[in-house]
Amino acid sequence: MELLHTTYQVQDRVGLITLNRPERMNAFTVQMRNELLYLLGEADQDDQVRALVVTGAGRAFCAGMDLAAGGSTFDYTSRYPQEDSLSRHRDGGGQVALAAYNCRKPVIAAMNGPAVGVGLTMTLAMDMRLAAEDAKMGLVFTQRGLVPEACSSWFLTRLVGAGKALELVCTGRVFRAGEMADSGLFNHLLPADQVLPKALELAREIAANTSATSVALAKAMLWHGLGEPDPQSVHLIDSKVFYWAGRQPDAAEGIQSFLEKRPPEFKLSPTKDMPDFYPWWKEPKV
Amino acid sequence: MELLHTTYQVQDRVGLITLNRPERMNAFTVQMRNELLYLLGEADQDDQVRALVVTGAGRAFCAGMDLAAGGSTFDYTSRYPQEDSLSRHRDGGGQVALAAYNCRKPVIAAMNGPAVGVGLTMTLAMDMRLAAEDAKMGLVFTQRGLVPEACSSWFLTRLVGAGKALELVCTGRVFRAGEMADSGLFNHLLPADQVLPKALELAREIAANTSATSVALAKAMLWHGLGEPDPQSVHLIDSKVFYWAGRQPDAAEGIQSFLEKRPPEFKLSPTKDMPDFYPWWKEPKV
Amino acid sequence: MELLHTTYQVQDRVGLITLNRPERMNAFTVQMRNELLYLLGEADQDDQVRALVVTGAGRAFCAGMDLAAGGSTFDYTSRYPQEDSLSRHRDGGGQVALAAYNCRKPVIAAMNGPAVGVGLTMTLAMDMRLAAEDAKMGLVFTQRGLVPEACSSWFLTRLVGAGKALELVCTGRVFRAGEMADSGLFNHLLPADQVLPKALELAREIAANTSATSVALAKAMLWHGLGEPDPQSVHLIDSKVFYWAGRQPDAAEGIQSFLEKRPPEFKLSPTKDMPDFYPWWKEPKV
Repeated sequence: MELLHTTYQVQDRVGLITLNRPERMNAFTVQMRNELLYLLGEADQDDQVRALVVTGAGRAFCAGMDLAAGGSTFDYTSRYPQEDSLSRHRDGGGQVALAAYNCRKPVIAAMNGPAVGVGLTMTLAMDMRLAAEDAKMGLVFTQRGLVPEACSSWFLTRLVGAGKALELVCTGRVFRAGEMADSGLFNHLLPADQVLPKALELAREIAANTSATSVALAKAMLWHGLGEPDPQSVHLIDSKVFYWAGRQPDAAEGIQSFLEKRPPEFKLSPTKDMPDFYPWWKEPKV
Repeated sequence: MELLHTTYQVQDRVGLITLNRPERMNAFTVQMRNELLYLLGEADQDDQVRALVVTGAGRAFCAGMDLAAGGSTFDYTSRYPQEDSLSRHRDGGGQVALAAYNCRKPVIAAMNGPAVGVGLTMTLAMDMRLAAEDAKMGLVFTQRGLVPEACSSWFLTRLVGAGKALELVCTGRVFRAGEMADSGLFNHLLPADQVLPKALELAREIAANTSATSVALAKAMLWHGLGEPDPQSVHLIDSKVFYWAGRQPDAAEGIQSFLEKRPPEFKLSPTKDMPDFYPWWKEPKV
Repeated sequence: MELLHTTYQVQDRVGLITLNRPERMNAFTVQMRNELLYLLGEADQDDQVRALVVTGAGRAFCAGMDLAAGGSTFDYTSRYPQEDSLSRHRDGGGQVALAAYNCRKPVIAAMNGPAVGVGLTMTLAMDMRLAAEDAKMGLVFTQRGLVPEACSSWFLTRLVGAGKALELVCTGRVFRAGEMADSGLFNHLLPADQVLPKALELAREIAANTSATSVALAKAMLWHGLGEPDPQSVHLIDSKVFYWAGRQPDAAEGIQSFLEKRPPEFKLSPTKDMPDFYPWWKEPKV
């Protein structure tokens, strides 16, 4: 796929996706959505990539949906000639969110500057968020006559709790990232120029020290554990995944290298070597 | 309805409910419950009200259930002549909590002073809580031989996480609101005399800047998103609500006013103009 | 049961379980698991015990699974001669977690020193965690080619939110407990020598001031409330439990003693006097 609104490079087993419309503060487009879906899918299937970082070119992360079409930006009626358009439409931010959520590799948002609307909501489904402490952020939907999207009504409350989530969404206020310290929204708040370096460091830390299948399984266990009604259900899944993992060569190597105080050399592939009961969850078709 | 234990006034499109038994530290009564249910229902249906603030008259917010009846305060047996009383009783604090949760307008608790028992639990279902940093608070139920109510076992853990919730409930301890900074319990902690002004400011901020239907839909999306097992289910709802919102006049006005750097003039009514698939969720009858 | 890897004593109505292999940093063994299951079950049924504290002998809390068996530590194949081993295995850490979760008494982890792997995950199902601020902690599973266990994919996200949970698990990093201040992971962070005294103080506070049946019911309400999809379901449970509690002698005593400003003398037994609708929840068999 030709990349027009993003760039992609892989270094040190880390994939770096850059939202690349700096002259438009990396405003989100249908093209950008398609490229993000493509890149997240590729990285999911590429054993050479152990973790992904998503950042923005220039001084912004993502200013939200491109509003070049003005007041009719979100009137999708013309796209749907048939009558069942309401039930056929699928929100683009949500598609990106679900691709990050489903990716076998950890996805780290390196929010180097402003992140507004979908520029913020699409990161909520990523595994970690690092942000410039001075960056302006906003879930501005209610101020635009819109509603939150990108599955954010699922993710946001599970990151910051119900109280803060409702304030941010009901006011639609623009805030500085630093105001949300200790809220759970951001993993790390940093000066703007340290956001990407720190995100790459985190990604390389994962690449260097962990088993790729362990991380893929653990990521899925945590996200899907949020949907389980009780710990007993999770115990049944845990027991199965742990039993499987414990007899793989990566477990032997992980323990042996730890006892010998040397770096581990993990071999398992998250595309070829996953247990046959993966995925163990059921999801509604979207 | 004649208001005996509360007062109500609407100004600047903000409804202010005041718990009004200052000589009893606004202790909760059946009368007060009935008035709160009435007022929350009225505000839900009144397009002139964009947000609600609930506060207490005098120096307290609400000292909890009125204990004038002594040890038999919570022995409701006499109310239920029939044998099926256990399954027929409905907790009054929970009725108030559900009315706040179901209200189309954001409900902001302005906790100007002490909030104990139901005085605290009934606010957990409100959308935001502002508190006097020195105010004494307590989920004292286990110290009185009782259990938490007002649906607080659902709301509390979703505000502060399981660990802090269990400590507050198992000890039943009285604490200063300021001790819970960064817990997610309170949106803002302030000197006592600034609590109500700040709550009214927040409410007016919502009234001035946001679409009433957007806020009503977004509030419902967040609260009901907490009950959805996976983001895919939420994606289907998001897509539908966003598609609907995007083609309404409020979206056109929201974007146009933003591009023109002027305040928006939203027109949609949360009673008359909601989408026909609202409400999209199913709930057990209570 | 003969206690080989733990000790147990009851004082002031508080049960103190000590992980007791100080020469091995209290590394977890099958024997230790069996003793913990036994002790948690005993305390659940012993009306003389109002709260439990779990701590470690010597300078560590629990260094994780004993790795004396080296790389094959977690290869359980030999334990299961039959072919259906994958579905028959039950994770030991998860069994301990569920025993703490199901115990009618609050369980307080007094993490006096390092807590790694199962040494940390087994505490996530306990009701409170107090930790030495300098203690090294780690969910190191992905660094060992393993996955998190002990139902931690259910508990962790409900304590610290999704963002921090994913960082700790994906990196498998060792961190100082103090770095997680304000995350919701620990109820209190203290100098190492104050952890156990503070935990005992909390336990005695519960024993002195609260009704044992109230605490048992409230603990169950909070944990099971996390699994309920909506507050309406919880309202039906609340109403029933509160109605029951309100007409018991402990409620009369709780209110009367409060009005008379004297310590309460609660009489109800959490083994003999629970309502006949307890337990009200359904769980999958494990």
